[in-house]
Amino acid sequence: MNEFDLIRDVFAPLSPSGAPAFSLKDDAAHFTPAPGQTLVITNDMMVEAVHFTGDEPPGRIARKLLRVNLSDLAAKGAKPCGYLLAMAIPASTGKQWLQEFADGLRRDQEGFGCALWGGDSVSTSGPKVFSLTLIGERKEGAGVHRGGAKAGDKLYVTGTIGDAALGLKILRGEIAGDSSLVARLELPTPRMAFGTGLPDLAHAAIDISDGLLADAGHLARESHVRIDIQASEVPLSPAAERAIAGNSELLLSALTGGDDYELLVTVPEKNVVALTEFAEETATPLTAIGDVRDGSGVCLLDDQGRSMDYKRAGFEHFQE
Amino acid sequence: MNEFDLIRDVFAPLSPSGAPAFSLKDDAAHFTPAPGQTLVITNDMMVEAVHFTGDEPPGRIARKLLRVNLSDLAAKGAKPCGYLLAMAIPASTGKQWLQEFADGLRRDQEGFGCALWGGDSVSTSGPKVFSLTLIGERKEGAGVHRGGAKAGDKLYVTGTIGDAALGLKILRGEIAGDSSLVARLELPTPRMAFGTGLPDLAHAAIDISDGLLADAGHLARESHVRIDIQASEVPLSPAAERAIAGNSELLLSALTGGDDYELLVTVPEKNVVALTEFAEETATPLTAIGDVRDGSGVCLLDDQGRSMDYKRAGFEHFQE
Repeated sequence: MNEFDLIRDVFAPLSPSGAPAFSLKDDAAHFTPAPGQTLVITNDMMVEAVHFTGDEPPGRIARKLLRVNLSDLAAKGAKPCGYLLAMAIPASTGKQWLQEFADGLRRDQEGFGCALWGGDSVSTSGPKVFSLTLIGERKEGAGVHRGGAKAGDKLYVTGTIGDAALGLKILRGEIAGDSSLVARLELPTPRMAFGTGLPDLAHAAIDISDGLLADAGHLARESHVRIDIQASEVPLSPAAERAIAGNSELLLSALTGGDDYELLVTVPEKNVVALTEFAEETATPLTAIGDVRDGSGVCLLDDQGRSMDYKRAGFEHFQE
Repeated sequence: MNEFDLIRDVFAPLSPSGAPAFSLKDDAAHFTPAPGQTLVITNDMMVEAVHFTGDEPPGRIARKLLRVNLSDLAAKGAKPCGYLLAMAIPASTGKQWLQEFADGLRRDQEGFGCALWGGDSVSTSGPKVFSLTLIGERKEGAGVHRGGAKAGDKLYVTGTIGDAALGLKILRGEIAGDSSLVARLELPTPRMAFGTGLPDLAHAAIDISDGLLADAGHLARESHVRIDIQASEVPLSPAAERAIAGNSELLLSALTGGDDYELLVTVPEKNVVALTEFAEETATPLTAIGDVRDGSGVCLLDDQGRSMDYKRAGFEHFQE
């Protein structure tokens, strides 16, 4: 189908008929944030055979694309408003595939409260490539960044770590394990509600996409601090515990694997109670896993306080 | 080179050290438009072997990518602020190539007054794919859209039409002609200065990317009007005149070819003088080429007022 039919039939229904996007009838979105709000803008790209196989249900690819962007906003305490979607797709891509992709977007944009504002659709001779730019807003003057961690802060993480990394090993046939681990890889759950509490309570935050240790490294580097993580405190799901079964290599895979889309947060001692309460209010599992110190880098500590080796932690996205 | 080195060494220098992007040290940009300003957000994607061959100087690919987005803002009367760049590139892409690409961005972002705010970089097994999301701002409450044209409006176009389409034919060896035509294809010049006058003076505007007749069709459809274009009034460059040399097929190619990145504008009679004066102030060639009428569709008229056939005008991007 040609670009104009595709937009009109499949994607325009995802766009509001008035501002900011006028059902995609123009080639730009027009948006004025509410008074006192700052825009937060992020972008993530996904490539067939790199970030997804192409054999998944198209709707799930779309939802993961939206959710990895939402997770970036969660780490900033921002609420989503709208997004622009650019896609390079082979001419052979059928309308049914694209409709299912759009249905996935619809489901998640309704669930998370945002809408399609624009984008582009072009043909390619290669793998499908999707680029999504997500626009959110947060209260002005209340940002939370990677670079705000201070020595003395406590380190917290939401949810459980490593499920997605173990899920990938299951998909690849390298280990056995529960399908719940694969599900975490296939469709992450961004921590939107908990994220909104961060600007008031946290010093620094990041969403865990590259892996717990790598993303802790980003926080440490941008904040000019050292981050100590107690390995035994890192929360694992029961399914992850079973899959790891005491194998220290698999534990390291869990801590370095990426695609968790949980939030890693540093919080000053005085706000620990309030943050814990906010986690309860938003039904968000929250676990203290370490401390921010003077220095640099990330130390993974065993129960005797000894620094553990984690040579794989420098990896970027595990699928690249 | 890995993603982190690439961002730090090649792309972070394109980003301001403070807000909104903090030298790309975070994964989102934070931006508050000035009071009374509305954001205008647009996205265009370019794919190797579709929108560029890959053999061009990398800086020129980057500049064209930025400029086709800038042209969308020009049609809205918006000024550019910042952009997010997503790129899917093969692992074999060298640092030199990427540095030249970034140098092209630097040159044009300095020339047009915007900066890199963020983005994503991923690997691909296929052709290079670039997606650029450009954020601009304009005065609140003063939008100009595709859908605002009214019967009685005069139709104007900036610059000259068809140079890029003829340039492509020269590149393909189909015709002979001046290198100036190829240059128009390779590096368009968005009409930023003239665009800023449109919200106050024009009823509707669109930038010509799909071709004069196709984009006039978009205006007609969204505005529920008919647009009459006098074929002999459409401004052609001397080089285009020479290349066409009276060949009516080549003239149609020029009118339907696309990639002009001029502005097509409808203006009420009462604003014609002011618009013409604003064109002079901004050193923008501006030509009256037709009228907006009740009805639907686009009529290309010959000197006797007869409707001409232009079967190719429905084409999308000529390179797709």
